[in-house]
Amino acid sequence: MKYVRFRDPAGAIRRGEYENGHVQFADERYSLESDEIDVLAPSEPSKVVCIGRNYAAHIDEMGSETPDRPLLFLKGPNAVAGHGDTVTAPAGKDRIDHEAELGVVIGEQCRHVPESEAMDVVEGFTCVNDLSNRDDQEQEQNWIRGKAFDGAAPMGPVLATPDEVPDDATVGARVNGDRKQDGSLAQLIFTIPELIAEITTYLTLEPGDVIATGTPEGVSPLSDGDTVEIEIEGVGTLENTVRVP
Amino acid sequence: MKYVRFRDPAGAIRRGEYENGHVQFADERYSLESDEIDVLAPSEPSKVVCIGRNYAAHIDEMGSETPDRPLLFLKGPNAVAGHGDTVTAPAGKDRIDHEAELGVVIGEQCRHVPESEAMDVVEGFTCVNDLSNRDDQEQEQNWIRGKAFDGAAPMGPVLATPDEVPDDATVGARVNGDRKQDGSLAQLIFTIPELIAEITTYLTLEPGDVIATGTPEGVSPLSDGDTVEIEIEGVGTLENTVRVP
Repeated sequence: MKYVRFRDPAGAIRRGEYENGHVQFADERYSLESDEIDVLAPSEPSKVVCIGRNYAAHIDEMGSETPDRPLLFLKGPNAVAGHGDTVTAPAGKDRIDHEAELGVVIGEQCRHVPESEAMDVVEGFTCVNDLSNRDDQEQEQNWIRGKAFDGAAPMGPVLATPDEVPDDATVGARVNGDRKQDGSLAQLIFTIPELIAEITTYLTLEPGDVIATGTPEGVSPLSDGDTVEIEIEGVGTLENTVRVP
Repeated sequence: MKYVRFRDPAGAIRRGEYENGHVQFADERYSLESDEIDVLAPSEPSKVVCIGRNYAAHIDEMGSETPDRPLLFLKGPNAVAGHGDTVTAPAGKDRIDHEAELGVVIGEQCRHVPESEAMDVVEGFTCVNDLSNRDDQEQEQNWIRGKAFDGAAPMGPVLATPDEVPDDATVGARVNGDRKQDGSLAQLIFTIPELIAEITTYLTLEPGDVIATGTPEGVSPLSDGDTVEIEIEGVGTLENTVRVP
């Protein structure tokens, strides 16, 4: 099953079933790109738990070290943006990058989840763009200015249940239609169950919380007005315009 | 004015006026320590924005460098605990420290706030204990296991409006009654308006969000079952028991 959360013409927030570019709730059916609806992020996360350095080729391109346990960082609700939203990066920075990532949407409150039961707490998968302000990221201990700015986590539009998504699903990004990233979930260093087990050793995950599982190689700097598409096989395509003032 | 948020005997969440150890809402009045009420954190922050290395003597005791701009990090809503709550630190760690901090509770949604207008977005001040798991903090890039674990941000019980709190208010901690930290707001390297201006250059602050302004010298390791009191002049005293399994 696939779902899209949206605000309908009456202003009500709905989660409808998604199929072939259309979303249906009760007897109302809309094109995903219709002006009649506002597409929303698939959930309202209390926090987005992000993973750094989880694909070997991306670690190489950044000149980083492979971590011996997941590199965790946080984005707050202020970072959430939806499909079609225009995100404005912090002003005056030299390099704002896209990062295509599989987002794991949590379905139930959980803590101390063993790997063997981790998929039971997953509601589904979505596309995430882990927008990154490299100027500040490279200068600060915790990546707040660099990664947690307003709109730094566009996500959606589709939440796909795990059965829809192959284990080796492609995770890609295009900028203005040009392919930039082209990875596969099979390349994840730490698997989704390993991530859930590690995170919940320390933090409670809430329904709607999102884990952004890291990005494959091919990150690249954005220019003002660029259109970024994050496409994940079996899930869908997230599109945003990014302003780089 | 001083306020305390609490759950009343009927289960309703109230914010009452606080005076002399008692909280009053409409015609009901309770002792703060009464079993009849559950004292809650003063707000439900969407995020807690924390400041590291904001007192010179604490920078010295940690062997850290003085930052040239505020060192920011985040805790999510899972970190919030209230007065009287028992917090359990992550298991198997060698050093869990208390950190007494002034918490700034934000009163309105804001972004790009100039220093000269920063106090207009402040609802009041509260006590925060920035509990820190040094084992993991010293090993990780972003302080998630180290600082953002469940219950790592006890806060409250009192929200005091800024007029109640002197500019050089004492910020202290006691462990099992023994004085450990004894600083003053006059020692802050980055002032509250400077912090608000810097944070809102990048992030929107929401009503109820809390800025934890950093800790003075004297942090010390906790043992299982220790009682920690965070006391700020003009605000009040936050007390929690910490389990260190």
